Amino acid sequence: MDPAGAAHEHGGDLAAARRRFPGAPEPFIDLSTGINPQAYPVPPLSPDVFARLPERAALDRLNAIAAKAYGAPSAAHVVAAPGAQLLLPLVAALTPPGRAAVLSPAYSEHSRTAALAGHAVTETAEIARLAEADLAVVVNPNNPDGRIVATEALRRLAGALAARRGLLVVDEAFMDVGPAGTSLAGEVGENLVVLRSFGKFFGLAGLRLGFALSGLNNVARLEASLGPWAVAGPAIAVGTAALADAAWIEATRRNLEKSAQRLDRLLVGAGLDILGGTSLYRLVRTQRAPQLFEHLCRAGLLVRRFSYEQTWLRFGLPGDEAAWERLGAALILPASW
Amino acid sequence: MDPAGAAHEHGGDLAAARRRFPGAPEPFIDLSTGINPQAYPVPPLSPDVFARLPERAALDRLNAIAAKAYGAPSAAHVVAAPGAQLLLPLVAALTPPGRAAVLSPAYSEHSRTAALAGHAVTETAEIARLAEADLAVVVNPNNPDGRIVATEALRRLAGALAARRGLLVVDEAFMDVGPAGTSLAGEVGENLVVLRSFGKFFGLAGLRLGFALSGLNNVARLEASLGPWAVAGPAIAVGTAALADAAWIEATRRNLEKSAQRLDRLLVGAGLDILGGTSLYRLVRTQRAPQLFEHLCRAGLLVRRFSYEQTWLRFGLPGDEAAWERLGAALILPASW
Repeated sequence: MDPAGAAHEHGGDLAAARRRFPGAPEPFIDLSTGINPQAYPVPPLSPDVFARLPERAALDRLNAIAAKAYGAPSAAHVVAAPGAQLLLPLVAALTPPGRAAVLSPAYSEHSRTAALAGHAVTETAEIARLAEADLAVVVNPNNPDGRIVATEALRRLAGALAARRGLLVVDEAFMDVGPAGTSLAGEVGENLVVLRSFGKFFGLAGLRLGFALSGLNNVARLEASLGPWAVAGPAIAVGTAALADAAWIEATRRNLEKSAQRLDRLLVGAGLDILGGTSLYRLVRTQRAPQLFEHLCRAGLLVRRFSYEQTWLRFGLPGDEAAWERLGAALILPASW
Repeated sequence: MDPAGAAHEHGGDLAAARRRFPGAPEPFIDLSTGINPQAYPVPPLSPDVFARLPERAALDRLNAIAAKAYGAPSAAHVVAAPGAQLLLPLVAALTPPGRAAVLSPAYSEHSRTAALAGHAVTETAEIARLAEADLAVVVNPNNPDGRIVATEALRRLAGALAARRGLLVVDEAFMDVGPAGTSLAGEVGENLVVLRSFGKFFGLAGLRLGFALSGLNNVARLEASLGPWAVAGPAIAVGTAALADAAWIEATRRNLEKSAQRLDRLLVGAGLDILGGTSLYRLVRTQRAPQLFEHLCRAGLLVRRFSYEQTWLRFGLPGDEAAWERLGAALILPASW
């Protein structure tokens, strides 16, 4: 592994899939990400949103609404950024170069960006080892397997790290569909950063909007690095509307859960073992994962595979009936399979 | 001066002006930025632009078009970012912490972000002193006074710095309206970074799009810090269309020049000394700048003032006839003035 290298595989690259499988039916369907395919409806945007520099007052309103939606102590504990991804190296640099430990396997960018910030990075499956680090990273719920670390275990870890001036980063990119009461957003401070992603749950990943929730000193340092206009006008406008739309949020949580159960039925029906996931994706294990990946690609369905675990495939949610039917048909595997 | 502090005055904050001058006529007119008020028309955007993660292929297309528009050696010499502002601390960190020198007065964020990257920052009006630095920054054409450093002088400076492994950063945020042949975009390498801003000339500052042009190693380092999806889908889509629109670009250069001449006539007619500027703004000097600033605010016109030089005011271009007339009327100063 080369955590500092720039080249990492990610989901979402339909163009590459099309090049490799030119005979696949169109539209090629992207199930390789954990992004809600039923996006929040983008409201009409005023020309000023594109033309003018975003004003501080608009950003403050967004941060206040985000604080409420995510359960942060206050708007002053919130930093908005052009995607949570861009925050990763800045958050890793909040603590001086030292030892970083990432609860793994998890979203691979945490190891890469911690190394970029000068840390010696360890990937470990044992949460106890995180307490020895200067920077500890937990993705919760985890991507790709949906593992949830018990809130009490996270609190103990945060306490142990704080006692040694270590920093705990909890990446809650998928917490919008996580179990109630498991977010640490309400407990952030100088030794605890919670990251939240806007684009996944709201299905608007192209907007680029994410948040760090932390103590006031960390917030000031992150804002100094991001500078005065990091978040685009369209992201501020749409984010402010969407995060305040409690009815849409609640209905979407329920709909995603139903969709994930429908996905489970297809996967189980195909004889696949489901390792875990969230309502936005499911992770399956099969010895024939490479063959299944290619079979699905030939059927115009891109799923996510993993260089570090070749028996895994992650399935996102189909976005419409045509996509559900294509997936259902492709998962009726030949008897010889 | 506190170059590492987060609080800096900038143009564009109409909300603050409205709070301070609640009796001013509406709409309050923003002349405090150097942003083209006649924006490039935003084309209809596909829902995918908001919904999907931006794909590498789309970013590559944008970079290729930007390379051509700006005159970079190739697309591989281009890094796109969510605004040139966000690139400043990353570019300053391309060279190890040392001595930074900023040709001054200039855009204040260069000093702040160089300090943030660990440099000891000197602001100097003498270009010769820049050759002694590890990181030298020249804004060209300069903001706010429009000063142009002769291309040969910049080349000599770049050569002197390269010989000592120093880095020259030329911020060409306003070069779209600069004199032909004065951009260094075609000469970038590991010791020379050129910054370009999309939002100012195209009048779309809310989109957040900017570029660094440099050598391949610097490009790789900047991309590693930005991560895989730094630029939003709308910014990629609009930037790709706008930077390829040579007819609009050429017509806009001419129109901005005419508008700047019209602005000059108003300013000179009001007895103000014009120190310089570009086609996107003019800088005036008057002993009564604080009074003129307030007088204009009461007339619903926000211009840019400068904490470090209280006799200066910078005027951006009015965006429509109503704004031109409001400015013209406000600049008919009372005889007692």
